[in-house]
Amino acid sequence: MEKISVHNFNAGPAVLPKAVLERAQVELLDYAGSGMSILEMSHRSPAFDAIMQKTEADLRSLLGVPFDYRVLFLQGGASLQFSMVPMNLRPVGASADYIVNGTWGKAAVKDAQKLGVTHIAGSTEATGFDRVSAVHSLDLDQGAVYLHFTSNETIHGVEWQSEPAALEGVPLVCDMSSDFLSRPVDVSKYGLIYAGAQKNAGPAGVTIVILRADLLERVPTSLPVMLNYQVQVKSGSMYNTPPCFAIYMVGLVLEWLQSIGGLPEIARRNQEKAHMVYRAIDQSGGFYRGHAQADSRSVMNVTFHLPSEEMEIEFARQAQAQDLVGLKGHRSVGGIRASLYNALQLESVQVLVQFMAEFQRVNG
Amino acid sequence: MEKISVHNFNAGPAVLPKAVLERAQVELLDYAGSGMSILEMSHRSPAFDAIMQKTEADLRSLLGVPFDYRVLFLQGGASLQFSMVPMNLRPVGASADYIVNGTWGKAAVKDAQKLGVTHIAGSTEATGFDRVSAVHSLDLDQGAVYLHFTSNETIHGVEWQSEPAALEGVPLVCDMSSDFLSRPVDVSKYGLIYAGAQKNAGPAGVTIVILRADLLERVPTSLPVMLNYQVQVKSGSMYNTPPCFAIYMVGLVLEWLQSIGGLPEIARRNQEKAHMVYRAIDQSGGFYRGHAQADSRSVMNVTFHLPSEEMEIEFARQAQAQDLVGLKGHRSVGGIRASLYNALQLESVQVLVQFMAEFQRVNG
Repeated sequence: MEKISVHNFNAGPAVLPKAVLERAQVELLDYAGSGMSILEMSHRSPAFDAIMQKTEADLRSLLGVPFDYRVLFLQGGASLQFSMVPMNLRPVGASADYIVNGTWGKAAVKDAQKLGVTHIAGSTEATGFDRVSAVHSLDLDQGAVYLHFTSNETIHGVEWQSEPAALEGVPLVCDMSSDFLSRPVDVSKYGLIYAGAQKNAGPAGVTIVILRADLLERVPTSLPVMLNYQVQVKSGSMYNTPPCFAIYMVGLVLEWLQSIGGLPEIARRNQEKAHMVYRAIDQSGGFYRGHAQADSRSVMNVTFHLPSEEMEIEFARQAQAQDLVGLKGHRSVGGIRASLYNALQLESVQVLVQFMAEFQRVNG
Repeated sequence: MEKISVHNFNAGPAVLPKAVLERAQVELLDYAGSGMSILEMSHRSPAFDAIMQKTEADLRSLLGVPFDYRVLFLQGGASLQFSMVPMNLRPVGASADYIVNGTWGKAAVKDAQKLGVTHIAGSTEATGFDRVSAVHSLDLDQGAVYLHFTSNETIHGVEWQSEPAALEGVPLVCDMSSDFLSRPVDVSKYGLIYAGAQKNAGPAGVTIVILRADLLERVPTSLPVMLNYQVQVKSGSMYNTPPCFAIYMVGLVLEWLQSIGGLPEIARRNQEKAHMVYRAIDQSGGFYRGHAQADSRSVMNVTFHLPSEEMEIEFARQAQAQDLVGLKGHRSVGGIRASLYNALQLESVQVLVQFMAEFQRVNG
């Protein structure tokens, strides 16, 4: 097996499967004998239309998207969905519930509050976002028009092991950006799922939205075209020119996922990788201190601290020198963060765990 | 010189310079010795930061962007700017002026009307959008908070030869998507310019916004983050993950533009190409009928008709068979459209003009 030249632990954009990049490279100047690059091909061409169709079909098949759900490929990242969700799904005067377990949940609330009535159904800020909310402690509003949560918080490294249950008739809305396609999900439990692609699904520049068709009835006709789910559904995500190349890359990633055995297999691999790093933390005798409580540990982003900030800086520096990149924690929380997305290979985690042991031996 | 395999007359996404695609291909798996693809690189990394800085600097230098203007790289296409412009620059109750010379100007008005008071300062719909508005006939509102126009209408093939003059103190706002970087422009005459990249500036997936800094004072603090120019300026277009690869491609296109002599040289080439096609139309004795009036002819999109719709279909079919692709007119207006963007080579236009002559000889 070819040696991995760089171990990419970045939190996103993140490592992509080598096979996907190699195929994109081969096809970059001449897609499927068209004489054109995907980058210069009309989005109305039969060739690109086939890419759109296949990408949606593969996503539906991999994730088990029920037939009464619509799939959109949009722009603007999850952050644009922070405003599009309330604009489209929360009528004037109505209230929506939000669970806040980290930076991204807070950001979603901030935009939702600008646009209308927003109720915090749960927050773990008091304990430094070291866990997800306990389901029994949620303060759910019977009249909420949806319940929003963030399945995985990249900065704090906490993740829902399974989705919270919304009250009867209240659609569950999820920012699934950072664990989308990392494990099987029962889509039928959700009203709407959104995810920036740049963790597990592809490169930056495309955002996937999956929504139950009946929710489209809530969309106000007064919404501008690009912010309007109705318009985007009717036009097949092509009211205007979509981010063609990013969608094409998502398509290649989906094919790769299928080829390795789909979501059950990638979930198994992700569990194995995360388990290795958490075990290294747990067996370090307190030298490495995990941020997340055991039952909220993220399989995607492992966050931990060292005995001092100086040592954390040194850890990241030495790691970088050994081609372990992207390990510095987010500037807002410090520490170390190892992101272990789908395309990160087990070998990279082995190298990290060895490095952790060696660093502790010298500095512990 | 290498033979061009396909002559790409698509209206956008459009042909890209071969040298740019070749460089992207070479760098696709390992950018600048990083061991990573641009597609999997953190947007907070020094390598990507350098790309952002250089791309903005090159754009400023090529276009002569004055220092008191800000440059943004956003998502959502020009169509998202149809709502962002009024949201950001038109206070509640105030009115904005719009000039409408085609489909895109109409689309901009539609969103502006949803969001507030919109005054049509001029329209050429009565003559089938066969020209841009006469400057002396504009019905400009002294109290307008901006004057919006579309410099080039891709579907109808009409283009402003130079910008309309707004009233004293009224900022000029331009959807420059389809002729951005095709010719020199005096940016200081504008309050705000926006352009989807996928014609002359790069691939689909990034939208460039250039705005005079004083206009940021108008931005309501209540706007959601991704729709807020203030937030985007303060975060250097990185409130969230930007469309990294599309921005990188724009950077490569800008370097290519510099290498060939900048905007004066590309304008000369574009004029030469357009002149060849319009001459072929004018010398066809009426077989080919140009849609645009002479003084409004677009240098980017040449639109014309043949004696019958059947003949137009046959024209596009035979052209396609000879590797002249993308010549079918937009479904809303029919006819033929030849888009002659920056990267389309003179040779492709020569082949088109020969094809037009031959088609007329056989069918005329």
